[in-house]
Amino acid sequence: MRIAELDTPALLVDLDALAGNLSRVASYAKEHGFRLRPHTKTHKTPEIGRMQLDAGAVGLTVAKVGEAEAMAPAQSPDLLLAYPVWGQRKLERLMAVARQTQVTVSLDSLEVAQALSDAARQAGLTIGVLVEENVGMDRTGLAPGASLVSLARQVQGLPGLNLLGLHFYPGHIWPPHADYDAQFARSGALLAQACDDFRKAGLPLEIVSGGSTPTLFRSHEMKDLNELRPGTYVFNDCDMVASGFCGWEHCAAAVLVTVVSTPRPGFAIVDGGTKTFSSETVPDAAGTSWGRIVEDPAVKFYMKNEEHGYLDLREASLDVKIGDRLRIIPNHICVTVNLHEKMYGIRGDAVEQVFTVAARGKLQ
Amino acid sequence: MRIAELDTPALLVDLDALAGNLSRVASYAKEHGFRLRPHTKTHKTPEIGRMQLDAGAVGLTVAKVGEAEAMAPAQSPDLLLAYPVWGQRKLERLMAVARQTQVTVSLDSLEVAQALSDAARQAGLTIGVLVEENVGMDRTGLAPGASLVSLARQVQGLPGLNLLGLHFYPGHIWPPHADYDAQFARSGALLAQACDDFRKAGLPLEIVSGGSTPTLFRSHEMKDLNELRPGTYVFNDCDMVASGFCGWEHCAAAVLVTVVSTPRPGFAIVDGGTKTFSSETVPDAAGTSWGRIVEDPAVKFYMKNEEHGYLDLREASLDVKIGDRLRIIPNHICVTVNLHEKMYGIRGDAVEQVFTVAARGKLQ
Repeated sequence: MRIAELDTPALLVDLDALAGNLSRVASYAKEHGFRLRPHTKTHKTPEIGRMQLDAGAVGLTVAKVGEAEAMAPAQSPDLLLAYPVWGQRKLERLMAVARQTQVTVSLDSLEVAQALSDAARQAGLTIGVLVEENVGMDRTGLAPGASLVSLARQVQGLPGLNLLGLHFYPGHIWPPHADYDAQFARSGALLAQACDDFRKAGLPLEIVSGGSTPTLFRSHEMKDLNELRPGTYVFNDCDMVASGFCGWEHCAAAVLVTVVSTPRPGFAIVDGGTKTFSSETVPDAAGTSWGRIVEDPAVKFYMKNEEHGYLDLREASLDVKIGDRLRIIPNHICVTVNLHEKMYGIRGDAVEQVFTVAARGKLQ
Repeated sequence: MRIAELDTPALLVDLDALAGNLSRVASYAKEHGFRLRPHTKTHKTPEIGRMQLDAGAVGLTVAKVGEAEAMAPAQSPDLLLAYPVWGQRKLERLMAVARQTQVTVSLDSLEVAQALSDAARQAGLTIGVLVEENVGMDRTGLAPGASLVSLARQVQGLPGLNLLGLHFYPGHIWPPHADYDAQFARSGALLAQACDDFRKAGLPLEIVSGGSTPTLFRSHEMKDLNELRPGTYVFNDCDMVASGFCGWEHCAAAVLVTVVSTPRPGFAIVDGGTKTFSSETVPDAAGTSWGRIVEDPAVKFYMKNEEHGYLDLREASLDVKIGDRLRIIPNHICVTVNLHEKMYGIRGDAVEQVFTVAARGKLQ
């Protein structure tokens, strides 16, 4: 099949760029001796999870039990549920997953640990646990100190659980920010503090798991860190380019759209809006941008409704007519993928692979 | 089944509130003699489309051919595709729909009209056409004047098409804006101008179709308007309350979430973020809000990531612990529904009906 035969909107994945992205991060992890356990929330597709494993990942990360279930065909030897799972039905489903593969859960409360222990014990299974530290994101996770150590000790005492170490997510550190270096140093210091506490308390640090995509290539500056869980790096997006993590050539995913209206000179409407891209914006030099037009980045994607994308071509050299097709790199690829049933793996003009986004909408 | 048995996040629909919303708008339409052709993009569910028809709608509106296909079980006698459909495959699929029900398309270009005419002629069908006017939204649609009249005349000359009148969308008129009245008057004047042009040119005005939810109850102030296409009114949301269209009691849909972490005093994390609600925000008096907590609106929903909702309870009387469940009214329900596979129709504590969101993700 050729790209020209696809109907729009369609989510295209450049297979060579994808392979390059997998290799780029796997090489970094290998060079610095990191375990790589990529977060599959970006692609939600077992075939791509398998590619990550084949490129050297030791396991995969998911946020929801439904994502873990959908990832089964990847045959990962190991899954991290990087989320405080709660509820009897979810725990039962998680135990079914854990019968097929080693499962680890990150958590920040005794309540979640206790319920997980009960489920593991009843199932006759052992579930790995990472206790989550807050290194400045102020989301889930406990600040370093007595509460964190105490939770880890309590986890050690619960049957069916195997405490493996620490988990954190430095998603608040965003390189373009003026205080990026200071934030990075502060998070590193908080992590070092918790690790020191763990060592003093005789608690395991077999796994110290962190790493988001924007900060990824500085991971070796973080003492004690030994596992990376990047998600977005498989495809990248406008956010990742803005963060300095990658260039446009590393953006492997783009939405193919069609011009459906040219109602006024200099303006065009395409057949993708917030239901195709989601509604995250990126502030750029020229104002707020809703995505980057591959064919001519001077075209301004200045507004979206649910099914309409608004383009301003007045400062662009590109001219368009109804029926023309454009590729648009989303601002945030993770939420875009979640809106699509299929992704089309391309090389040149050929569609070589059709991916079903198996974990799309798996909210539970 | 009881609500307590549902896993979270789960999208709840209060069936009584839904019925009240359907009746409220149907009564207004009847009182003022409007045709009501509701936009199904909000619920994407044929059962609810059927309820709209049973409440007095003359037909249904969709934005995509895939939505039209998914709406088939509603057995609507009439469908409006309120979108400039383009592409051979989409047109073939639309003709298959048109063999089952009367189809009308709104469009703003000769290119789209010509391709639609070719498809209709080949299929031996007649497709209704509304020519789209721009009444200030600056999206699709032509300004009133010679181009609009000329397009309508050309449509009249194309085989397989039946020009029925005018289409517009006043989605730019948002009651909280300071110039709401002026915007409304300006759009009304633009519509009147196009209608006068049509009359002078002997063009049909059998259907003059407009109306978005926020402006709905002022539709009778718009001369010549005879058809309404509201979408959001079935469920309503924080946006609609902010616009003054309705009260909180008219918000029929809410997402049931679970508290999964209480990492710091005064803060909690729930198991729904941008992949559960989408990322539209509503500016409110206290800052930007990401949704309204039904149990205690003083709880501030101040931030979202993909699977995390951040609550600030410091100024609320509500206290929460891990495992507690809350209902959150989304800012924009149309994009929220599109993220869910199912909706749960409730009365009191009982789940009385499970809806499959059949048109979820039907982007093409």
